[in-house]
Amino acid sequence: MAYATFEYQGRRQVGRVDGGTLVPLAGLTELGRDTSTASLARAHELTGEAVPLREVRLLPVVPNPDKIICVGLNYHSHVGETHRELPSYPVLFTKFASSLIGAGDDILLPPESGQTDYEGELAVVIGQPGRRISRDAAPAHILGYTVANDVTMRDFQYKTHQWLQGKAWDRATPLGPCLVPPAEVDLASAGIRTILRGEKVQSADLSQLIFDIPTLIATVSEFTTLLPGDIILTGTPGGVGYRREPQVFLAPGDEITVEIDGVGTLTNRVRAE
Amino acid sequence: MAYATFEYQGRRQVGRVDGGTLVPLAGLTELGRDTSTASLARAHELTGEAVPLREVRLLPVVPNPDKIICVGLNYHSHVGETHRELPSYPVLFTKFASSLIGAGDDILLPPESGQTDYEGELAVVIGQPGRRISRDAAPAHILGYTVANDVTMRDFQYKTHQWLQGKAWDRATPLGPCLVPPAEVDLASAGIRTILRGEKVQSADLSQLIFDIPTLIATVSEFTTLLPGDIILTGTPGGVGYRREPQVFLAPGDEITVEIDGVGTLTNRVRAE
Repeated sequence: MAYATFEYQGRRQVGRVDGGTLVPLAGLTELGRDTSTASLARAHELTGEAVPLREVRLLPVVPNPDKIICVGLNYHSHVGETHRELPSYPVLFTKFASSLIGAGDDILLPPESGQTDYEGELAVVIGQPGRRISRDAAPAHILGYTVANDVTMRDFQYKTHQWLQGKAWDRATPLGPCLVPPAEVDLASAGIRTILRGEKVQSADLSQLIFDIPTLIATVSEFTTLLPGDIILTGTPGGVGYRREPQVFLAPGDEITVEIDGVGTLTNRVRAE
Repeated sequence: MAYATFEYQGRRQVGRVDGGTLVPLAGLTELGRDTSTASLARAHELTGEAVPLREVRLLPVVPNPDKIICVGLNYHSHVGETHRELPSYPVLFTKFASSLIGAGDDILLPPESGQTDYEGELAVVIGQPGRRISRDAAPAHILGYTVANDVTMRDFQYKTHQWLQGKAWDRATPLGPCLVPPAEVDLASAGIRTILRGEKVQSADLSQLIFDIPTLIATVSEFTTLLPGDIILTGTPGGVGYRREPQVFLAPGDEITVEIDGVGTLTNRVRAE
């Protein structure tokens, strides 16, 4: 079972993935603030209106989230390569809804940056609102998982000690292709890999997260109410381009894929803006 | 001339401040994404429906902004007290729409923090969308100014090197009382003051901003599209409670006021959540 937000013949819809087709859900135009776990489960399937997956444009799984919260330094292998200390509290920063693109959209390289880098990540989508959610209660607040590429302009990220201007470029953060409900995937045994120009540049097990998903939900919801459609990017493993020798950055014509076992494969081409 | 977003008899409206009354603007329920400079200027005034200012609840000037971008370390006096180096690029971080409260709303002290601090600031509200706005073009993108208190939980801010979890607590950031169009105020000669428990704890001239407003608009719009209703908090002067000796933090029963000449006076009480 998986869901996607898509455009077909100029119309925005939510569909359930059924093999090579998408079955639209009545009354839903996108995954987000109006798609709680309950409303998604209740939605009526328009089986007569199924469309071939290859004919649609996949949008970011959640095109207009209220909040995107990102976690830095959440794998030992990435903390190590950045020569930073192991955090005792998750390192948190944000992106904007306008940062997002869908699977198949092109990652735009802005002319202002010469250091556009990849970061393959698991993304969590919230399905049940809550504040001060306990670790124990956190799983019930998850709508599902998807794949993200936390594309980062390194030369901008390090302009000051705060990272926003390196992380929140418009149309540079792929999120997709689909939303997979928690019951459909065993994250404890899943791996994540990033492939650039045919070479595997990042590889880790999701069990290696320093702060696990319940801890991230508890930490963020301590200070702000999580809403359906809110997204938490859970951090990237070691192997980012900026920390390689020699350094590697995205270039026009590149194809980059982030894949997570049981969650999906997110492939985007790169082009100059 | 000034505008406010308010609730009266359970209805949310935008009004023009006319002495002690608010004159509702037809068809507008809040300042934000749908109120560009042009649409606000065009709005029809419902003069027969004017309501007394003292009978309304003032909401945050923009209750649901797409983005809130905050600037740190933008006055020499505050950079000095933090013992940080003078930034060569604005220090940028974010809050969420759920962080905001209106003039007259209570600032909530969360039980998790023992170090809730004030930061009086000028806020800029965008009225014209744009990306890669030049400094010269920036003034035309401003809908108006208002007053903000960038309330910060210091013990959370410094949990890691990224500040989000100290800045983005729900219902803790006053924004208001009104929006004042640029033509109505001379920022070059305006002062900003914060008054806590009857004592002036911050005082500066807005001309002392290290990065001026056109520079902030140019800097932010380089990486993301600014939309009507987006808010830029321009930074706080020296005198924050955390840097005083002895330190001062907000306590239940406190009244705190931020005032900016020609822009407004923002007063809130403080209470335990």
